[in-house]
Amino acid sequence: METKGHVYVVSMLLFFVGFQDSEARLLSISKPDPVNAAASARWLVSQNSWGVLNTVSSELGGAPFGNVVSFSDGLPNKGRGIPYFYLTTLDPTAKNALKDKRSSLTVSEYPIGTCGKKDPENPTCSKITLTGKLVLLDINSKEARFAQNALFSKHPEMEGWPKSHNFQFFKLEIEDIFLINEFGGPKPLTVDQYLHPKMNNFAFIM
Amino acid sequence: METKGHVYVVSMLLFFVGFQDSEARLLSISKPDPVNAAASARWLVSQNSWGVLNTVSSELGGAPFGNVVSFSDGLPNKGRGIPYFYLTTLDPTAKNALKDKRSSLTVSEYPIGTCGKKDPENPTCSKITLTGKLVLLDINSKEARFAQNALFSKHPEMEGWPKSHNFQFFKLEIEDIFLINEFGGPKPLTVDQYLHPKMNNFAFIM
Repeated sequence: METKGHVYVVSMLLFFVGFQDSEARLLSISKPDPVNAAASARWLVSQNSWGVLNTVSSELGGAPFGNVVSFSDGLPNKGRGIPYFYLTTLDPTAKNALKDKRSSLTVSEYPIGTCGKKDPENPTCSKITLTGKLVLLDINSKEARFAQNALFSKHPEMEGWPKSHNFQFFKLEIEDIFLINEFGGPKPLTVDQYLHPKMNNFAFIM
Repeated sequence: METKGHVYVVSMLLFFVGFQDSEARLLSISKPDPVNAAASARWLVSQNSWGVLNTVSSELGGAPFGNVVSFSDGLPNKGRGIPYFYLTTLDPTAKNALKDKRSSLTVSEYPIGTCGKKDPENPTCSKITLTGKLVLLDINSKEARFAQNALFSKHPEMEGWPKSHNFQFFKLEIEDIFLINEFGGPKPLTVDQYLHPKMNNFAFIM
């Protein structure tokens, strides 16, 4: 009973905190039920700190070019779903994006460690590809400040990266979502559903 | 002295085994010196079992589409550098590749666990992108049998994947290599150097 009471108090606390913020935030780190596509997708993006960011490489004949990057969608356990990056044009990815914004970010559950002994390609070991436009943020914008806090809180060493490399903040404007988290093919999931997941079992608050 | 003697015997054994095989094989799982770009790249590809495979998505306006996949470049610790895949056209990646072969495979050292507390985007946490053509193998070819052994030995559950999904063997024909494993930008590394790495400290045998 003590445990149940504790859960109730925490739940109510999360409920009230939620009403102070108009945007959806992820407050639980427990893996959601795969049936809830939006919660599952948001959990995967929020709990992971790195993925592969794909751009179109004009130098390589228009080939799709993937690059390992760190990202963040918000403060730890307060992800908002939109991935932000800290990139330099010394690297092909940012250079490619400034020529052609078409991009995708691919993230796997496998490195989080919750897939057990499943193969990384097993459909129940979830994976997501967010496709859209990779855009540079205005350094003086409110969103750039949000991106900086989101990134530096999850990736503390970024703050010390060389100033001379001219790192800049980018975001992925999501247009399409490809999510596999169970058998049976990709889960239907719109960008709107992803950005505003329905509250269930207190994993998300609006 | 006993340890040194043991190392000598193992080294000589590897040396002689090596001359029985005309292709370069990775026999050591210890991380090579980052200065040796070819050894470092081959180690990274051989030790990893999954990555992000990129194709051009005609359904998404030609966007680069990354997908989490399992791969193998050979039997465990006997990698030959060329990544093989087991894909179904029920999935966008194989479907895309059959329309447009341009592709890349991106692999990170981070999930191997040898990056310590470094950020996944830290240049000393190595990463590689192999760019080229993703091609379907003839199921009756010797190479398809090699791919099957390479994949099923590292990914045992593949053997039980549904026959009705018509999984097929693909390989990436590598045309360009992007490797970062130290500070100072990408390491120059040709495909030939990658496929035929120089023998050093018995990590590779020819």
